[in-house]
Amino acid sequence: MREVAVLGIGQTKVDEHWDKSLKELAGVAILAALHDSGLAGAEALYVGNMMSGPANHQQHLGASIADWVGMRYTSAMHIEAACGSGAAAFRSALMAVASGAVDSAIAVGVEKMTDSPGDEITGQLATAADADWEVDQGLSFVAINALIMQRYLHEYKWSKEDFGAFSINAHANGAHNPFARFQEPITAAIYNRSGMIADPINLMDASPIGDGSAAAVLVPLEYARSHGGSRIIKIIGSSGATDTIAVHDRRDPLWLTASEKSAKQAYAQANVTPQEIDLFEAHDAFSIMAALSLESTGFAERGQGPRLANEGAILTTGRIPISTRGGLKARGHPVGATGMYQIVEVIQQLRGEAEGSQVENARIGMAQNIGGSGSNIYTHILKVE
Amino acid sequence: MREVAVLGIGQTKVDEHWDKSLKELAGVAILAALHDSGLAGAEALYVGNMMSGPANHQQHLGASIADWVGMRYTSAMHIEAACGSGAAAFRSALMAVASGAVDSAIAVGVEKMTDSPGDEITGQLATAADADWEVDQGLSFVAINALIMQRYLHEYKWSKEDFGAFSINAHANGAHNPFARFQEPITAAIYNRSGMIADPINLMDASPIGDGSAAAVLVPLEYARSHGGSRIIKIIGSSGATDTIAVHDRRDPLWLTASEKSAKQAYAQANVTPQEIDLFEAHDAFSIMAALSLESTGFAERGQGPRLANEGAILTTGRIPISTRGGLKARGHPVGATGMYQIVEVIQQLRGEAEGSQVENARIGMAQNIGGSGSNIYTHILKVE
Repeated sequence: MREVAVLGIGQTKVDEHWDKSLKELAGVAILAALHDSGLAGAEALYVGNMMSGPANHQQHLGASIADWVGMRYTSAMHIEAACGSGAAAFRSALMAVASGAVDSAIAVGVEKMTDSPGDEITGQLATAADADWEVDQGLSFVAINALIMQRYLHEYKWSKEDFGAFSINAHANGAHNPFARFQEPITAAIYNRSGMIADPINLMDASPIGDGSAAAVLVPLEYARSHGGSRIIKIIGSSGATDTIAVHDRRDPLWLTASEKSAKQAYAQANVTPQEIDLFEAHDAFSIMAALSLESTGFAERGQGPRLANEGAILTTGRIPISTRGGLKARGHPVGATGMYQIVEVIQQLRGEAEGSQVENARIGMAQNIGGSGSNIYTHILKVE
Repeated sequence: MREVAVLGIGQTKVDEHWDKSLKELAGVAILAALHDSGLAGAEALYVGNMMSGPANHQQHLGASIADWVGMRYTSAMHIEAACGSGAAAFRSALMAVASGAVDSAIAVGVEKMTDSPGDEITGQLATAADADWEVDQGLSFVAINALIMQRYLHEYKWSKEDFGAFSINAHANGAHNPFARFQEPITAAIYNRSGMIADPINLMDASPIGDGSAAAVLVPLEYARSHGGSRIIKIIGSSGATDTIAVHDRRDPLWLTASEKSAKQAYAQANVTPQEIDLFEAHDAFSIMAALSLESTGFAERGQGPRLANEGAILTTGRIPISTRGGLKARGHPVGATGMYQIVEVIQQLRGEAEGSQVENARIGMAQNIGGSGSNIYTHILKVE
């Protein structure tokens, strides 16, 4: 496999972008990434998106966006893995360059959710769950996560308030990120009195939807060495793994097996241990997911994710900083775009461009993007050369 | 790039499969392909599908189908390029194996269209066209193709009846294919008196929708050589190219530039000329598309596609047989599955397993899958070793 590096990154603010169509939104991130890379275009385009069909009445985003950004005739396709679509697109772009089929590829994640009424969006998000056995029982995504969190509290004897530290950390970091949907810190008091959505998940446990796009330009490492300027960012680990789509089919609903498998494969490929990871962009769609991710990736013992949060280990000054640019919670969660935001944010950290929430001397960063309720998980590890 | 071969193929009949869910349908093809390959599973799964979100209220097909076929934990994702989704999934599986990231991958195309009312399906198909500039004007897919065909008749002085030979050939071949939706030959009289849908496209110019799934197992060529039995099928060319999503944005609406580009790249990679291709599974969603494909791939002169059909060159005994197992017209067009049916059918021909419509001494076959109205086109060339 040919080694691959990221030469450029771009993103839009996560927001309500009512003045931009889906392809315009993707275009902003792609053109910013191209500008950052110094390239005028790329040989392939991979578009991560979850629900443009129902939400925007537009599929076929590969052709649509390639043309819009001035890459007419370029090879392009749309990649979907529910909320893991962004990282799945990144992995596809990586394969294309690693195989030698192309010498440059763009991965972009894009989602435009705020044009649709909330009840429609809830239904569209539910297409990532099992239509036959979860959704038909009336389960929405927040309800599935509430069941998991309820069981977690019971099993490991944590209180609901112990999860506040995840949200407080995410909002503290998001306050320094001009691309974050929410740029204000919150307090424990705000967390504790925020409205309940699906017991025990309250508003401050849940990430907000939004419109947004983030992109990266991938090239062979050799090319980056001669054109990449002072800081070369290598992709040293990439893996994806699935689990049952329905949570009730799992032997243990409190263990993210797909996360464990993809992380272990990525560590092995990168030849690093969890102790060598300087920051971790975790998929904190709900605070319970941040806890479970820390455990399945080897940063926390089983059932002890909240301990890391409450001990301050997840702060930018801690042992394993997470959500360093706000995470899904504060930066926002435009579902099919999220995985690419995570990649872009890891690279900002590795380049030393994460002003206000910079992790000192960050050299190896990890991003993990989760599709469904832990059913399709991608782990990427990047390193400063 | 590591060389890649196809070790196994499988398919379902294109039909109204009201007794099977989407994942069950995909499972039939995947398990048949695995059985054919002698493998129990694969390291990666790529699912080509266009519209399971709106049509089946189920996205996230990677995780859903991987688990269903006994490949829980396998890396899996969904690939979409409108009606080109099947070939896009095949190309993605090829990249994964070619890069060395995995040693086996399954590509499956699946679509389940007949559960939805016809008017809903027409709207869902239209998400492959330009939502802002085509669909908003009331253009459906058949209407767009009718405009193209109308212009073609005017420009090149063909009569509508000259297109009957495409449909007659497809149905003659489909009559021998147990997996085809329509297994009865038609006559020129039937073609000429069949009902008009969108002038000049009549019912016999248009491919039928349907439910169906087709799959292939890809492995490194070296592995196939030691495990593949007597006939090894190599993938010697693969390319994808896009064009404007809206037909009116093209300089020449009668020329499939994306087809030309992807075919030329595939020929170059395979180191073959059109003259060396023994059969061509063309994307005859409408008979006008069969004509345009023959021209843009170099088999016919510009404006002369219908001549090949009327001279018998497209018959299984002709110079460049097309639709050898019925094509989209008679085998059926379950949109996101079609590209994989084409691949499977080329391999049947190369293995000598196309009983009733076998092309004698077929050694090199080509498949071209078109997404949208010529806006995302994949060309694959396969060869018997």
